[in-house]
Amino acid sequence: MGDQEHGAAVTGVAASQAVEASRDLTRALAQFIISSGFDDLPAPVRHEGSRTLLNWVGCAIGGARHETMAKAMAALLPFFGPPQATLFGRPERVDVLHAALLNGISSHVLDFDDTHIETAIHPAAPVAPAILALAEHRPVNGRDLMAALVIGIETELRIGLAVTPAHYRAGWHITGTAGAFGSAAAAGKLLGLSERQMCWALGLAAAQPVGLQEMFGSMTKSFHPGRAAQNGLTAALLAHKGYTASEHALEAKRGWLNVLSAAHDPAAITDPGWEILNNSYKPFACGLVVHPVIDGCIQLRDRDGLTADMIERIELAVHPRVMDVTAIKDPRTGLEGKFSVYHAAAVALAEGAAGEQQFSDESVRAPTIAQLRRRVAVTIDPALGKAQARVTILLKNGGRPSVLVEHAAGSVQNPMSDRMLEDKFRGLADGILAPDKASRLIGLCWDAHKLDDAADIARNAASA
Amino acid sequence: MGDQEHGAAVTGVAASQAVEASRDLTRALAQFIISSGFDDLPAPVRHEGSRTLLNWVGCAIGGARHETMAKAMAALLPFFGPPQATLFGRPERVDVLHAALLNGISSHVLDFDDTHIETAIHPAAPVAPAILALAEHRPVNGRDLMAALVIGIETELRIGLAVTPAHYRAGWHITGTAGAFGSAAAAGKLLGLSERQMCWALGLAAAQPVGLQEMFGSMTKSFHPGRAAQNGLTAALLAHKGYTASEHALEAKRGWLNVLSAAHDPAAITDPGWEILNNSYKPFACGLVVHPVIDGCIQLRDRDGLTADMIERIELAVHPRVMDVTAIKDPRTGLEGKFSVYHAAAVALAEGAAGEQQFSDESVRAPTIAQLRRRVAVTIDPALGKAQARVTILLKNGGRPSVLVEHAAGSVQNPMSDRMLEDKFRGLADGILAPDKASRLIGLCWDAHKLDDAADIARNAASA
Repeated sequence: MGDQEHGAAVTGVAASQAVEASRDLTRALAQFIISSGFDDLPAPVRHEGSRTLLNWVGCAIGGARHETMAKAMAALLPFFGPPQATLFGRPERVDVLHAALLNGISSHVLDFDDTHIETAIHPAAPVAPAILALAEHRPVNGRDLMAALVIGIETELRIGLAVTPAHYRAGWHITGTAGAFGSAAAAGKLLGLSERQMCWALGLAAAQPVGLQEMFGSMTKSFHPGRAAQNGLTAALLAHKGYTASEHALEAKRGWLNVLSAAHDPAAITDPGWEILNNSYKPFACGLVVHPVIDGCIQLRDRDGLTADMIERIELAVHPRVMDVTAIKDPRTGLEGKFSVYHAAAVALAEGAAGEQQFSDESVRAPTIAQLRRRVAVTIDPALGKAQARVTILLKNGGRPSVLVEHAAGSVQNPMSDRMLEDKFRGLADGILAPDKASRLIGLCWDAHKLDDAADIARNAASA
Repeated sequence: MGDQEHGAAVTGVAASQAVEASRDLTRALAQFIISSGFDDLPAPVRHEGSRTLLNWVGCAIGGARHETMAKAMAALLPFFGPPQATLFGRPERVDVLHAALLNGISSHVLDFDDTHIETAIHPAAPVAPAILALAEHRPVNGRDLMAALVIGIETELRIGLAVTPAHYRAGWHITGTAGAFGSAAAAGKLLGLSERQMCWALGLAAAQPVGLQEMFGSMTKSFHPGRAAQNGLTAALLAHKGYTASEHALEAKRGWLNVLSAAHDPAAITDPGWEILNNSYKPFACGLVVHPVIDGCIQLRDRDGLTADMIERIELAVHPRVMDVTAIKDPRTGLEGKFSVYHAAAVALAEGAAGEQQFSDESVRAPTIAQLRRRVAVTIDPALGKAQARVTILLKNGGRPSVLVEHAAGSVQNPMSDRMLEDKFRGLADGILAPDKASRLIGLCWDAHKLDDAADIARNAASA
């Protein structure tokens, strides 16, 4: 009982301070959500919104054939409603609520979606599937869709920042817990909720947090953002019809902030910055730890026009953590390939990419890749930072090109270019959408704000 | 940051102790769930299961026309799947997942369902709607249905006991958080999950806790058990098709017990008692605080054959808390009537009941009831306990019958009789099911374990 009483006392102190500091926090957030339109978004914010959309659509298509999706479909198929909304990268249409869930799962299942580093939130996965599904049921133009996407993401990131780091440290998977607020806010905007209704929607979202870190490594990890998308959407739909909730869900003594986090900073929720500008996109379909090596290999390949048959030996100098996590010398499956710095370097040099295809079972078993893998030598260099790596190639012709990577592509310091995002998209869509359909869909994502009917995006993301 | 670091440290200690104590807790619980059948239930446990079922079905029917249900239906109607399952007390049929949600809402919306006092869990609301809906989709006999109901309830109560009182004190609505485990366990039994699949189902349930106490007083309160029913059912359906989750969802460092409760006693989860024997049922459709007064009035009325016109004056001696909560002298609405000890005593004497109809707007406004209300005099007696009340009636003929209530009907010490549960059921079904249909349904609930097809219960609970 000692620990318990102690724990309760600590929470109690935090609670009373928080209530004092922010009596109308939920209302203030609701006001921000309903009053912010596309015209209020600065140009860089709009562009980051487009990049987030493009990256998310690619990930949702790329994950559509994953085993996780097949099992979820098999379980839920008997209960689907009318065929209202697209499953990205698949031929089936399902009801809006299931589309939000399933597209949310597929967009996160490859762990290849966007990341807000400070909170560890994957911003798009709980928000985009909710509003893209809703847009197929209730017509909306592209400007309103993009405003909803950006404001939904701001909402979840602000709430996430308010509970960082205590909430994540306690064991919550923050993408699913904070994510439901993002989905409720974005869907609520498309439904035209009043301030009071938006408070109810945030309350209904607060009551349904999803995600424990214990689920990492299982299919339930990607269920978290999918369910958050579905829960937030459900919250907005209920509030729209007058289903009531507390109007103080965030700040109340027994509200979300106090119950789900040992400490929090409510000021983050009303802070007027644009957090989406700190969103980042993974260029490579594996853990961030090997991204500097991959980046260095691709740089040398592109700069010097290297091909596999020119290479005698590949020397990597890496931070110690790389060999803690990715030391598998001879991977046998695609998944093992993601934990092999040898395989990562080999595919990066051979193919100039490290997408899902480079981490497939076929790629891992390809003789040319296996041959190149055996030419990789790794040295641990404690002087290197986690974000750094040195790649040196010994060429058969005696050349010795080398590069020191300071920040890998995809980091906030070295963001993926728009063209890199397009290439990533094409890689994810390969084998699912025909190349001309993929190109058309890329164009629709960039120009989403110009669409009269935002449902054009989802409709063009279905596979044949 | 001070509080936050402190809070994290406290949680950390609890975590490592718990993991040490219970490395295979989730598996042990899964083993109990899948291996316990109807034949393993002692006779009193079976009978309590039948009482729980009867009480739940009545509450679900009685809540079916509540405004909360109308709003939920309006919001979700466009997304319903095939008409697979009954909405209790309504004419519509909806898909199994929505039936679990909506029947869960209607069964809790009157706050008239069963209560496990020690944990504050309403045991049936998250469990019964999930399995009764599933039984309409996948045929199951009554023995298996009753075993699933009882074992589902044991599951949620054991987990609830393990985190009592810290979890509830922190602000969680425990019926929604622990309830999802009950639903997953019960639905998983009907689906025939293996031990490993049952671990996954418990994991998927753990990842989706629903319910903050801040929602009390809003429609979201009854959403909590409904969503818990739907979430647990979804968890079982996914696990059945091989959708994986952690197999250590309860005991893991970042699992449910550590993340959602500052302290816990894992031993409660493997304790072999039958907690359903501590379930209780409200005979009166209002807060427990006025139940002793109502009970005393009904006792005198029944014993002495009293009618309203025989009564000169009604003297109540009550615990001080009664006048803190229910002091409204002249209520104007049914809801205000629930907070009027005057009204409660009047209807109890006039009608021998205090169900939803006695707390309707019509009842509050009826002249005969208003007249009787004005004859009630209340004295606070600090010597009386919270469970006690003394009722004395001054009759026009000079008689002065009196009774001291020690434990009101419906308490664990003085449980409602089976006949009282039947009367409550008839009151809830009045105006929704024809009397002969209500009687038939009461019989089906008592004899549920004899049914070849357990779906007979739900099918007979639809309104015309």
